[in-house]
Amino acid sequence: MVREVEVPEIVVRRLPIYVRALAQLEAQGVKTISSLELGRYIGITAAQIRKDLSYFGEFGKQGRGYEVSHLLREIKRILGLTRVWPMVVVGAGRLGQAIASYDGFKPRGFEVVGVFDNDPAKIGQPVGHLVIRDVSELPAAVRAHDIKIGIVAVPAAEAQKVADLMVQAGIRAILNYAPTALHVPAGVRVEDIDPVVTLQSMTYYLVNSESRDPAGTACPGAAEG
Amino acid sequence: MVREVEVPEIVVRRLPIYVRALAQLEAQGVKTISSLELGRYIGITAAQIRKDLSYFGEFGKQGRGYEVSHLLREIKRILGLTRVWPMVVVGAGRLGQAIASYDGFKPRGFEVVGVFDNDPAKIGQPVGHLVIRDVSELPAAVRAHDIKIGIVAVPAAEAQKVADLMVQAGIRAILNYAPTALHVPAGVRVEDIDPVVTLQSMTYYLVNSESRDPAGTACPGAAEG
Repeated sequence: MVREVEVPEIVVRRLPIYVRALAQLEAQGVKTISSLELGRYIGITAAQIRKDLSYFGEFGKQGRGYEVSHLLREIKRILGLTRVWPMVVVGAGRLGQAIASYDGFKPRGFEVVGVFDNDPAKIGQPVGHLVIRDVSELPAAVRAHDIKIGIVAVPAAEAQKVADLMVQAGIRAILNYAPTALHVPAGVRVEDIDPVVTLQSMTYYLVNSESRDPAGTACPGAAEG
Repeated sequence: MVREVEVPEIVVRRLPIYVRALAQLEAQGVKTISSLELGRYIGITAAQIRKDLSYFGEFGKQGRGYEVSHLLREIKRILGLTRVWPMVVVGAGRLGQAIASYDGFKPRGFEVVGVFDNDPAKIGQPVGHLVIRDVSELPAAVRAHDIKIGIVAVPAAEAQKVADLMVQAGIRAILNYAPTALHVPAGVRVEDIDPVVTLQSMTYYLVNSESRDPAGTACPGAAEG
């Protein structure tokens, strides 16, 4: 599909939420859904859904809503989810091992095909159906299988070095679990997963609603001052 | 501090990134930093940093940049991080156990004080320095310790039930690791951590830059069509 306008990043970030919801609805046997119902299911407005989808064409039929399976298939196609994406994980500590053996990737389009570490005590040990390999073997593995996605699961102090190695090997998308900002060249994407950063934005609202209204009945949208 | 305007959510979400960066800089012995340098360190523009901070007052001195320790302390105060927040985890599978024993919470303002499950085989087992307890004991524990933050680490099909239980007990912020949308009343915040959703937004860009430029030298900002 040829598009005239670039799709805003915030829209791209919402598309996987639609995929997740539509897959659940499809599994529940739901055949069609209105933008209003889908919005309620996800927790956003119907107008937002219609606007987001309008970047990619016409998906709903006037007065009949969306066909769940069709819309799911189309958004998956837009997101490049018509294939399974192989991924490598660097870092085979507790977190890396949990990631490498997570069974939720495969049904949603991803598969960890290699786990790497630099600790001789870990190398050679099994993780799920994989064996932990020496990180020096990473570049060859990435090139051999044309792998584009890498997961960083090492401590913060090691993370940039690992990211550099990944990028040099040909990785173009990094999911970063290390609690630090990574620097990568243009054309490579990094997304952070740092639960503490997420928690710290929630405490802002806990503190503010507490100070605004000790009884705990504050309206979240109420203005201060 | 009394503020006239509400702080945009996107700004609140960036503050923890500043905290993380400033804590690292402080640990490295950096005393002062310009908005330009801080921006480079984090990967955003200096103008954005200045604009974000302007919601909360004056932190920099003309021509001298920010005092790292002072700015860190102030942003932590704004985010309510002058205390340690106790948290409960529900779900003691592989993920829940990894969360409960994660040593990165405590230094950054959070502590898991209870882990709960409904599986008799798990209840009574140790996780780190905690013991897995029956989920029926959750409400009493939350009330007894005035806990405001809950972490959902159960399968998607169980997640809403757990969220309802948490909210009823007095939890006001939920970090949701289950790959499904949770519905909570106004005044309760939910943040999702779903690595697949994050990965799926990255594949959009992988697919688009691939189709735009098979040689792999695409400019990320280039318009299509």
